[in-house]
Amino acid sequence: MEDDVTEGAATQRRTRARGDRSRSRILERAAALATLEGLEGLSVGRLAEASDMPKSSVYQLFGSKEGIQLATIEAARDSFATEVVLPALAATPPGRERLLALCDGFLSYVERRVFPGGCFFVGAAAEVGGRPGPVRDRVAQAQGEWRDLLLAEACAAAERDELPVHADPSQVAFELGTMLAGTNILSVLHDDTDVITRAAVAVRARLGVASG
Amino acid sequence: MEDDVTEGAATQRRTRARGDRSRSRILERAAALATLEGLEGLSVGRLAEASDMPKSSVYQLFGSKEGIQLATIEAARDSFATEVVLPALAATPPGRERLLALCDGFLSYVERRVFPGGCFFVGAAAEVGGRPGPVRDRVAQAQGEWRDLLLAEACAAAERDELPVHADPSQVAFELGTMLAGTNILSVLHDDTDVITRAAVAVRARLGVASG
Repeated sequence: MEDDVTEGAATQRRTRARGDRSRSRILERAAALATLEGLEGLSVGRLAEASDMPKSSVYQLFGSKEGIQLATIEAARDSFATEVVLPALAATPPGRERLLALCDGFLSYVERRVFPGGCFFVGAAAEVGGRPGPVRDRVAQAQGEWRDLLLAEACAAAERDELPVHADPSQVAFELGTMLAGTNILSVLHDDTDVITRAAVAVRARLGVASG
Repeated sequence: MEDDVTEGAATQRRTRARGDRSRSRILERAAALATLEGLEGLSVGRLAEASDMPKSSVYQLFGSKEGIQLATIEAARDSFATEVVLPALAATPPGRERLLALCDGFLSYVERRVFPGGCFFVGAAAEVGGRPGPVRDRVAQAQGEWRDLLLAEACAAAERDELPVHADPSQVAFELGTMLAGTNILSVLHDDTDVITRAAVAVRARLGVASG
């Protein structure tokens, strides 16, 4: 009897682990797909096809298209943190150096096409910005976190007198964030790496750092 | 017989005029819809429903979804010219003053929601940037015209010594264009007019004009 319970628990754990792996695999595919075909393209059927899973499994894991969309946003947020935010936080002190690392990290993430259609959140914001609902709210929240991070580091830089004289940290953060988003769009649309170089120059101009 | 021919021609003209009006009405609706639901949402059925026309008429006018998408891009290009480009060209001489008028015109067009989901071309570029084909090509071409216009006026401003010292006109045009595109995304996503004010400040900083 005790053996049965132990074996039952082990089976449950294995099933759950398999479910988690399926879930991660599907969401990775979903996030990539969303940058090419939009969050609106993430139907149960399309995602089953793209991730080579039965429809019933996709449905069981996420329930609905909106369930898929919300879970995909979380997965993409994790990727963004891993690719852009955490490396900058780990490698630099607060202030201008960190702001520079965040911006360069973003440009590298766009240039390396971590997502095949460019930054997940720029694409998602452009797609769902005009459509009120939980998906837009979650995208706006994630975008707001990035905006707040740039702002916090710009403020830290100002406190340390690291910004050009008379620079307003809110304005610096705004200009960096919008310019980076616009760069992502141009980079994908024209499949152009020249814009990445120009953006790096712009970042340095805003921060008063010499271009390398 | 001659009367018959004349009458036939008049009927043909009336039919054509009616067709042109239907076409314009449908395309106006299509461009607005695309900024909320994407170019991908412009199916024959959806557009028939949104413009209160029979499916058969929509099909007869445009043939296919791609036909609708390409015609919608042309119509949006005309709106953009009427709303942003032509007023600036008419009111200002080449150079910095015109560049300022183009940027302010763009911001006003975003703020007034000429299209309910913000700038048609920022949305379209973000949506189809990663999907090669005639639709992406046409969007890239229209975006390129705007980029080239900003560049031409930045060069005219540089020739007239109207830019801040050491400013590279290509870099100025790039920074204005990307910042304006990013502003459009934030303005729609957060339904925020504060970003329009920040963008106007940024434009003036890049051009070396005092903020009003």
